[in-house]
Amino acid sequence: MKRFLTAAASALLALLCFSPAQADEGMWTFHGFPLDKANTTLKTKLDQRWLDRVRTATVRLSNCTGSFVSPNGLILTNHHCVASCLADLSSKEKSLLEDGFLAKSREEEKRCQTQVADVLVGMEDITAKIATAIAGKDDKAANEARKATLTELESACEASSKRKCQSVSLYEGGQYWMYQYQRYTDVRMVFAPESGIAAFGGDPDNFQFPRWCLDMGILRIYDAAGKPVATPNHLKINFAGPAVGDPVFVSGHPGSTDRQLTVPELQAQRNYEIPNWLLRYSELRGRYIQFSAQSTDNERITADLLSGIENGIKVRRKQLDALHEDSLFARKRAEQDDLRQKVASSTELRSTIGDPWADIERALVTREQIYLPYNNIEANAGFQGRLIVFARALVRGAEERPKPNSERFREYTDAALPRIEQQLGAAVPIYPELEQLRLTFGFERMREWLGPDHPVVRQLLSKESPAELAKRVVTGTKLADPAARLALWKGGAAAINASDDPLIVLARSVEPEARKLRKEYEDKVEAPVELASEKIAKARFAVLGTSVYPDATFTLRLNWGTVGAWLESGKPVEPVTRLARAFERATGADPFRIPDSWTKVRDKLDMTTPFNLSTNNDIVGGNSGSPLISAKGEVVGLLFDGNIHSISGSYWFDTEKNRAVAVHPAIMKEALTKVYGASSLYSELTK
Amino acid sequence: MKRFLTAAASALLALLCFSPAQADEGMWTFHGFPLDKANTTLKTKLDQRWLDRVRTATVRLSNCTGSFVSPNGLILTNHHCVASCLADLSSKEKSLLEDGFLAKSREEEKRCQTQVADVLVGMEDITAKIATAIAGKDDKAANEARKATLTELESACEASSKRKCQSVSLYEGGQYWMYQYQRYTDVRMVFAPESGIAAFGGDPDNFQFPRWCLDMGILRIYDAAGKPVATPNHLKINFAGPAVGDPVFVSGHPGSTDRQLTVPELQAQRNYEIPNWLLRYSELRGRYIQFSAQSTDNERITADLLSGIENGIKVRRKQLDALHEDSLFARKRAEQDDLRQKVASSTELRSTIGDPWADIERALVTREQIYLPYNNIEANAGFQGRLIVFARALVRGAEERPKPNSERFREYTDAALPRIEQQLGAAVPIYPELEQLRLTFGFERMREWLGPDHPVVRQLLSKESPAELAKRVVTGTKLADPAARLALWKGGAAAINASDDPLIVLARSVEPEARKLRKEYEDKVEAPVELASEKIAKARFAVLGTSVYPDATFTLRLNWGTVGAWLESGKPVEPVTRLARAFERATGADPFRIPDSWTKVRDKLDMTTPFNLSTNNDIVGGNSGSPLISAKGEVVGLLFDGNIHSISGSYWFDTEKNRAVAVHPAIMKEALTKVYGASSLYSELTK
Repeated sequence: MKRFLTAAASALLALLCFSPAQADEGMWTFHGFPLDKANTTLKTKLDQRWLDRVRTATVRLSNCTGSFVSPNGLILTNHHCVASCLADLSSKEKSLLEDGFLAKSREEEKRCQTQVADVLVGMEDITAKIATAIAGKDDKAANEARKATLTELESACEASSKRKCQSVSLYEGGQYWMYQYQRYTDVRMVFAPESGIAAFGGDPDNFQFPRWCLDMGILRIYDAAGKPVATPNHLKINFAGPAVGDPVFVSGHPGSTDRQLTVPELQAQRNYEIPNWLLRYSELRGRYIQFSAQSTDNERITADLLSGIENGIKVRRKQLDALHEDSLFARKRAEQDDLRQKVASSTELRSTIGDPWADIERALVTREQIYLPYNNIEANAGFQGRLIVFARALVRGAEERPKPNSERFREYTDAALPRIEQQLGAAVPIYPELEQLRLTFGFERMREWLGPDHPVVRQLLSKESPAELAKRVVTGTKLADPAARLALWKGGAAAINASDDPLIVLARSVEPEARKLRKEYEDKVEAPVELASEKIAKARFAVLGTSVYPDATFTLRLNWGTVGAWLESGKPVEPVTRLARAFERATGADPFRIPDSWTKVRDKLDMTTPFNLSTNNDIVGGNSGSPLISAKGEVVGLLFDGNIHSISGSYWFDTEKNRAVAVHPAIMKEALTKVYGASSLYSELTK
Repeated sequence: MKRFLTAAASALLALLCFSPAQADEGMWTFHGFPLDKANTTLKTKLDQRWLDRVRTATVRLSNCTGSFVSPNGLILTNHHCVASCLADLSSKEKSLLEDGFLAKSREEEKRCQTQVADVLVGMEDITAKIATAIAGKDDKAANEARKATLTELESACEASSKRKCQSVSLYEGGQYWMYQYQRYTDVRMVFAPESGIAAFGGDPDNFQFPRWCLDMGILRIYDAAGKPVATPNHLKINFAGPAVGDPVFVSGHPGSTDRQLTVPELQAQRNYEIPNWLLRYSELRGRYIQFSAQSTDNERITADLLSGIENGIKVRRKQLDALHEDSLFARKRAEQDDLRQKVASSTELRSTIGDPWADIERALVTREQIYLPYNNIEANAGFQGRLIVFARALVRGAEERPKPNSERFREYTDAALPRIEQQLGAAVPIYPELEQLRLTFGFERMREWLGPDHPVVRQLLSKESPAELAKRVVTGTKLADPAARLALWKGGAAAINASDDPLIVLARSVEPEARKLRKEYEDKVEAPVELASEKIAKARFAVLGTSVYPDATFTLRLNWGTVGAWLESGKPVEPVTRLARAFERATGADPFRIPDSWTKVRDKLDMTTPFNLSTNNDIVGGNSGSPLISAKGEVVGLLFDGNIHSISGSYWFDTEKNRAVAVHPAIMKEALTKVYGASSLYSELTK
């Protein structure tokens, strides 16, 4: 759609110093970043040193990003990125999520039981090794060989580097890389504001702009000796923030995009994957809301789960909207047909590449047929909650670990085991009533979607109702105790087979069918799709060259943009919000209630303080917590969201409307110094 | 898709006496029924007398159908069609839905407070009158004139006939008819089994076959003197049921189909109407389930609402599946393009018809823009529950009733008022906790979908949270009392304006915005779409003739089919189920728990009794409770559902797979005589 500027809107834009979008779409790897193009476009002088500094100051967290912002291991990230840790450090009676947290001294910094922090320190192209491993094999054999080789290469890398090594597939299999991470496993909570101000506006305001959220959290990494890790490569926060029109960079880990998927893969998302997810999670949202309404304890223990679901619902419903734009499919289809045609009309490409689009189309028919049983039984849609996931990991782990490393499921390789063990051993709170709710829900929907006569449903529910079964297993299990979990983990197959823990019994009973489905999926769907995708990537390289960026894969990426307004229904949206308006929008009731800590000092606060800002960087989920970096390499913002249009970024980048949303450093300073009395923390951040 | 018969499946089919489908799709009006075609196809000898008899023995209930099955006013329908009445006759402590009901004598028959029973006794074609009324007017003026004329014609009809008169638009405005109904307002509950056997298998089995549900209920109509109405035209039940291969007829009121909608109208359903509905109601389902889990009282008062929602979710998710079949759109688009092309290439048609498809496309852009505010504010998505609906009807009624009849909203014409008054005055139970739940839900979702800064949202929720507002209005209102409602109704505008009842205050406060949206919708969407649809209907008549049936409109229709098997994944599905298997499938837990009344007499029951049966009649929701009628004019089944494929019947009739599902009369006899000791009722049914 062409943008239409009215005269009045143009005048307003001029007042707002609206600068024409300088964003180029793209989530570039650090090994493929187009330095020259960026410098030319932005009139900057970035160099390799700048890139290295930014890369080593960027941290990968669970589903999130952070950045080192002090020489002593402080990590700046989002409140919603530390929400799980806050929930794990809470109890029914006291919620750190709700109340916030500030360590007055280093001794008070509390360890996040399951958080790790990874820094990307090495990158090796292993495409050729994979190509050699699968050469001449059919799709099933190639799939097995590819996975075995990746496992072996990871093992070898870890043995030689003593670092965490993870392979990554870029360009849907067009390239394979081995990434080395420096991993920190002792990550502690330093500061988090109350959720009332961190997520002011809650779900209604999520993915909206203008916005007023102090969505920040601060962690610190410690070494094995219990000392803060020195992080001399940290980025300094510039508390003045950026000027409108400034070029800004986002370094982070965009989770996943589907910009290069084929048409049938997108149709699968539109036709059943996203609708099925939305139906299930909308219902679960309703159950959580009603459960929360029963008591403040319930509300507390559900808050983190609920906000996660609400975020997921908003993302997927806007993704579905995007997939219902027939123009998207028309464009994708035209691109696909064009490439396919070029391959078909080149003798050389035709012979090496064939027609991988047809292979994918065929595999997707099978995929749709097994989607519901696979998703419910193997992928845990039918088995919800923390306890059952522990049980299933214990049962599967016991069977996998005795196998040679390269023959195991990829999530049980030697490289993966320490993290599993950390999670099994973490002393996180388990709320039985919540576990029962989640299990009941999973069982009921499994019965709905697979039908009451499906063998697994008959096996589980022919004598008990979903609620009865859930109650029996939750009441009877010992798996809420980390020691019990670790004992079963260490006891291996013998312990698992001897266990009469009802959750282990349940997990054992569905394991054969789950494995059968997994095998069917790997052989009939994953294998042909992987091979075909690699071929399409080759075709793309051959025809389009490599001057494109790969889809997001939750690996480190860098992109650029500018701070600026955009037009919404013809009206410009100012790129910076200010504190005063947050108070004006407050209703006194959640999620529009400003915490007492703020209202108490309201008179002392500078109401003109910039609060949130918008830029046209190309970001998606996983970028949460990313630093917004100036050309000078300073942190000038903390990315925490995108506007509503940014969600279609899964499939395309709309330069007109897609915007990233960040916390302005000025409000962080105001909060730390005037609201939370965190002057020593603030002072560390200025070093 | 072409059906593929393996040799084995063919052999099996032969064994099952599978007869080739004799169904023709079509929901024929009684004034347009193709008697000759039916007789030729089915080798029957139906005549006008047969049609008249069937028509006057068929009853329209709320969202359902029934049939007279005794000379003394007994109506046979579905249990799920009397569920609301059973719920209204229940309390927190005792649920007739759960326990069933049998009136031992006529004195014990309990009146359904809001049920009416209509019999179609007159039909007049008024197409020409409407054409005259709108001739030469633009779409907005035509829309107003059309509605005013329909109101005037209804009034005149009621005055002259002393009957209930309702106009109906057939062929999306291609024809207008005035239907006269004999209305019975004293409808009493005679018999209903427990929901455990009526809806055995619950939501998991809904829209499935094979099936085992005694989904029956029996009502009786009474006259003003309190005597049972004589119904000499009743249909006799043949308790032996039909033979496989027999032709069978369904007379009933299919609610609505969209087989003649244009492509953009179907896209609107696919892109936002159905997804929006599913998201909202999946969440409400979750809230109800969790609310139910809190106590057996809660479970009882929510059961009817919950099963209604679950049914609606299943319907819409399968409709969405159908709309995601790109082949459906390709076919619809080809048909549309063909008709459009024929109009464009005929000088005469081009001049009289123009390009109504373009008009609809334009109007639908506006429709999408106002969909969310319209749906939330005017169409009550944001205002859920019994009480607020009363309040809004009172407020709107007070403003509408003083206007001349033909200038009112069509739902407040003189013809409509008695029914509104009956509903306002009905002594139905109101459960405050449920009202709060529903209001809270509506407010929260209105805020989500319209955004916290929408003026109506600000107005309602700038000081209170959704839950606080809901609690205050439910606690403070007097509208739970029918006398209070009737007093406000009778008091008119003066009483409404003077009222400080918090629900009336709330309803008053949103009325201006609601009316504004209604007006915008009528002028910018309804008006152009109605006029364009009439033109498309004319084009269709001109090109295709009138040998087609109109889309379903919850008016009386007749169609034919046969009792028979179909193929599911290549395997035939037997058309008749038997009692034994119901006991085999029972788990002892809801919804697979067979009631004690049955297990107690299990030894006396004939386990080979036919239970449910499937036919290939073309039916949709609204046909529930329809009699399945033999060529002899006997009731040989009680329609209560379709198989899962029947749901796509909204958009097309798939002769291969679309099947209707009915209760077999033999199980009714077994139940009445051996389980429920209802021998005198059974004996009345054999008269």
